[in-house]
Amino acid sequence: MTGQLLTKDHSRIGCERLRSKVMTAEDAAALIGSGATVGMSGFTGSGYPKAVPLALAARIEAEHKAGNPFRLRIWTGASTGPELDGALARVDGIELRLPYNSDPIAREKINRGEMEYFDMHLSQVAPMAWQGFLGPLDTAVIEVTGIRPDGSLIPSSSVGNNKTWLDRARQVILEVNRWQNPALDGMHDIYYGTALPPNRVPIPLIRTDDRIGQPYLQCDPDKIVAIVETDAPDRNLPFSAPDEAARSIAGHLIEFFRHEVAKGRLPQSLLPLQSGVGNIANAVLSGLLESPFENMTAYTEVIQDGMLDLLAAGKLRVASATAFSLSPEAAASLNDNMADFRDKMILRPQEISNHPELIRRLGCLAMNGLIEADIYGAVNSTHVMGSRIQNGIGGSGDFARNAFVSIFMTPSTAKGGKISAIVPQCSHVDHITQDVQVIVTEQGLADLRGLSPKQRAELIIAKCAHPAYRPALEDYYRRAKKSSYGQQSPSLPGEALSWHQRFIETGSMLP
Amino acid sequence: MTGQLLTKDHSRIGCERLRSKVMTAEDAAALIGSGATVGMSGFTGSGYPKAVPLALAARIEAEHKAGNPFRLRIWTGASTGPELDGALARVDGIELRLPYNSDPIAREKINRGEMEYFDMHLSQVAPMAWQGFLGPLDTAVIEVTGIRPDGSLIPSSSVGNNKTWLDRARQVILEVNRWQNPALDGMHDIYYGTALPPNRVPIPLIRTDDRIGQPYLQCDPDKIVAIVETDAPDRNLPFSAPDEAARSIAGHLIEFFRHEVAKGRLPQSLLPLQSGVGNIANAVLSGLLESPFENMTAYTEVIQDGMLDLLAAGKLRVASATAFSLSPEAAASLNDNMADFRDKMILRPQEISNHPELIRRLGCLAMNGLIEADIYGAVNSTHVMGSRIQNGIGGSGDFARNAFVSIFMTPSTAKGGKISAIVPQCSHVDHITQDVQVIVTEQGLADLRGLSPKQRAELIIAKCAHPAYRPALEDYYRRAKKSSYGQQSPSLPGEALSWHQRFIETGSMLP
Ligand SMILES: CC(C)(COP(=O)(O)OP(=O)(O)OC[C@H]1O[C@@H](n2cnc3c(N)ncnc32)[C@H](O)[C@@H]1OP(=O)(O)O)[C@@H](O)C(=O)NCCC(=O)NCCS
Ligand SMILES: CC(C)(COP(=O)(O)OP(=O)(O)OC[C@H]1O[C@@H](n2cnc3c(N)ncnc32)[C@H](O)[C@@H]1OP(=O)(O)O)[C@@H](O)C(=O)NCCC(=O)NCCS
Repeated sequence: MTGQLLTKDHSRIGCERLRSKVMTAEDAAALIGSGATVGMSGFTGSGYPKAVPLALAARIEAEHKAGNPFRLRIWTGASTGPELDGALARVDGIELRLPYNSDPIAREKINRGEMEYFDMHLSQVAPMAWQGFLGPLDTAVIEVTGIRPDGSLIPSSSVGNNKTWLDRARQVILEVNRWQNPALDGMHDIYYGTALPPNRVPIPLIRTDDRIGQPYLQCDPDKIVAIVETDAPDRNLPFSAPDEAARSIAGHLIEFFRHEVAKGRLPQSLLPLQSGVGNIANAVLSGLLESPFENMTAYTEVIQDGMLDLLAAGKLRVASATAFSLSPEAAASLNDNMADFRDKMILRPQEISNHPELIRRLGCLAMNGLIEADIYGAVNSTHVMGSRIQNGIGGSGDFARNAFVSIFMTPSTAKGGKISAIVPQCSHVDHITQDVQVIVTEQGLADLRGLSPKQRAELIIAKCAHPAYRPALEDYYRRAKKSSYGQQSPSLPGEALSWHQRFIETGSMLP
Repeated sequence: MTGQLLTKDHSRIGCERLRSKVMTAEDAAALIGSGATVGMSGFTGSGYPKAVPLALAARIEAEHKAGNPFRLRIWTGASTGPELDGALARVDGIELRLPYNSDPIAREKINRGEMEYFDMHLSQVAPMAWQGFLGPLDTAVIEVTGIRPDGSLIPSSSVGNNKTWLDRARQVILEVNRWQNPALDGMHDIYYGTALPPNRVPIPLIRTDDRIGQPYLQCDPDKIVAIVETDAPDRNLPFSAPDEAARSIAGHLIEFFRHEVAKGRLPQSLLPLQSGVGNIANAVLSGLLESPFENMTAYTEVIQDGMLDLLAAGKLRVASATAFSLSPEAAASLNDNMADFRDKMILRPQEISNHPELIRRLGCLAMNGLIEADIYGAVNSTHVMGSRIQNGIGGSGDFARNAFVSIFMTPSTAKGGKISAIVPQCSHVDHITQDVQVIVTEQGLADLRGLSPKQRAELIIAKCAHPAYRPALEDYYRRAKKSSYGQQSPSLPGEALSWHQRFIETGSMLP
């Protein structure tokens, strides 16, 4: 099937000398050996290679049938599409995966203990690859929009860690994807100024729309061992229309922003927005469409449907990210209207889109989803019942710790009410109380800034918990205040995780 | 008693016009009303005001005796001395305390629920004060070494948040402490380039010894309502001589650094050292005295005894911090030999000494203490048994998340073996697994970089746990791998905090 993607029209390969490297995905996949570490492009369902991973999966399946072990260490930008994570996980082809995954097949393998998963801060992937302790990178497999006559590369719909993989890999395989809009050319800003200490210097970005690099990726042509031509769409899941809960959350949040503007603590155009992925994040962006804020900007990880709408409406002046993460319809519509959008969007390497230095300097308003929060406002973004990985921490730690205001939002219950998103104690912690300043559920918004743990607990229980769980939380907190070992953050270790244990045993946190 | 501190010799007050503001500590304390928010100088037992807080405490005691409520909201740099936190806590004079405390009397009040305590990242105190949600600052009480003829202030033995308190407070009280060595003049680097977003710019510090500001603090003279002259020593606790465990930890750590240098992952002069406070940190610094590393630098919070020794021996080229934290003998010796040291030390505001932008740029080697770590390498730095505050997170979050290598060190047990520092699950989390890359106990060193949670657990149990607890940890982990809800980070919520519950009930974690 992947062979069908081979075309005769090499117009996207402007560099004459490199055309000789064109081959089938199968031939390219044959250049990767068992045990190799492979750095792939891809950030959400955008810009990931679509042919070589499928060919690799087929090869691995054949090797396994023949009784030969064959597994890879796979590094990417973040999550990718089913042709990459899904296909390789299905054939048991992944030994270690980093730094983020949201593929359901890979998730199952990880949670059955059949695949190692190293869940990382997304800003740290590139610098840690340079630090060396992750080991050498054998092969980079990178999707690009085109190759220019001078050999430089027009990046695709995500940038992720591509610059670093191209620089670090021993050999490079390119996928040139004709499906990607040629108007992407010029939209990227690839900063080549990073270095390891002691040679690091300030990153000269001061405004969301500053361009500090160049539009193209560089790659030593001698390292390019294969070029595969494809014509295959990015694959992101569609967003569901905002439901009642999502609309309430958006409403509370916009009310909070209005209040902060009125108090003079935020400018009328707000500060650069960072918005996590998912349905609620998208609902908030939709809510901003009808808000009084103008001339907004976004400095975020991904540009999703809601941001395109804000850009189209002129409410958002510019959006900086490392990738698109668009529903199929929004992707098609962007492809049709690229000219209207291209000067308002910048795609950067993820070490820049998520850089703590820049997030703090710009003062982002961070809005992220969560699995559960506890009464003190610690947040679990990753581990259901403390052990089962959902996706990963992604960029949430980069943004939450450095944001001007760090906001987390969630429906107050999950799984039809059987799970409370507000628990006595988190079963796993990704964001410590210091990094969680506002929690919003459909019930209300808790502004936790400047409060001590006990003051936080009272507010979170009152404003955010679902009425079905509020009395039990109040009861736990009251008893903890009576008999806790210490009274800074009253807790009962013998009971703090009992809600999770009850869910595991009975299928519900309800008593 | 504080009245005795009033002297007739105003030579430290070079500004003629300000001499009229000299008064007793009692008169100065009378300028602060009940309910006020007071920003005090002080970072560890250095540079805190020594007379006004005592006078305030006396006044509060009298008011309480007369049946009048009188409590204050106290902001500082970090911990202070007994004349400040101890005295005010003893008379129940503190309503809210931020951002850090290590005073035993205040700690008891907090843990009995009699005082609110807001435990913050130390880098964020100044910017959050500017953000406004902490409320207005009524009075600043700042110790200085002297006042120059132009009214600018020679800072004392700590800088902390003094710049911000002076800028934000409605009125200012200065303590001019003759005990502070006049040779401190010129040692400080006060950077006045911070701003709130959208006006933040890169901080132009590239090397540990760069000076980016000016040596003096500025203060609008019209805001100065009182000047109190003192002659009182800083008070830090003496360090105990490194014991066997501390020497083992230091040995493992230096071996790790040698290994990283040999692998080419660290330069021979290492990278800027950050060292937490406490006996173990001090032992590591002593260990570095006999190490092969030369021309080291430190970019850290406090300069403690061990760093002076390294400077004196010429092993350390320069140390940047926000405060001294010296034992009485080391402080006396520094005072006697200031000329030899003054060009090798720089004191900065804590928003600069702890700035994530700078810690990441410089690539600090962060070495901090902990209360407990769990088998996945999450770290609790603050809450004994999950609820009782020890000190606070301090700068450990600023350094751990942004370090080149983030190291935590601890004896493997506490309280004579009744507590294991390695537990199935942390009872409170300050540092998430992503921010904890190396754990060292006297048992050994676990290099966790690049490992998945299960790989981390195996290494931590094998290398760091005490033999008395290792079998129980192995047993827990084995059973969790069998029946955990998910296998990314196997855990048993019904049992994960049972060690803490057992300690609370029986006084020991041992079964
Ligand atoms: C936390 C996170 C999973 C929430 O995702 P979301 O799309 O906003 O929210 P949803 O309510 O749809 O939850 C997603 C899934 O988690 C489940 N879930 C949510 N809370 C849960 C809980 N407390 N217990 C069990 N399952 C829970 C939902 O039921 C849903 O499962 P399903 O797919 O089987 O229906 C998501 O935000 C995430 O992965 N965050 C970490 C990374 C991140 O923040 N990235 C952006 C920052 S740059
Ligand atoms: C965590 C911290 C308290 C350890 O301090 P330390 O001086 O290195 O270590 P010690 O072993 O002397 O421990 C200090 C106290 O905590 C107690 N303690 C340590 N681990 C404990 C545990 N697991 N359970 C109960 N008590 C514990 C010790 O017994 C000791 O108590 P004592 O004073 O009553 O004897 C200290 O490092 C800290 O406050 N860290 C947070 C702030 C920080 O890291 N600052 C520097 C960063 S810039």
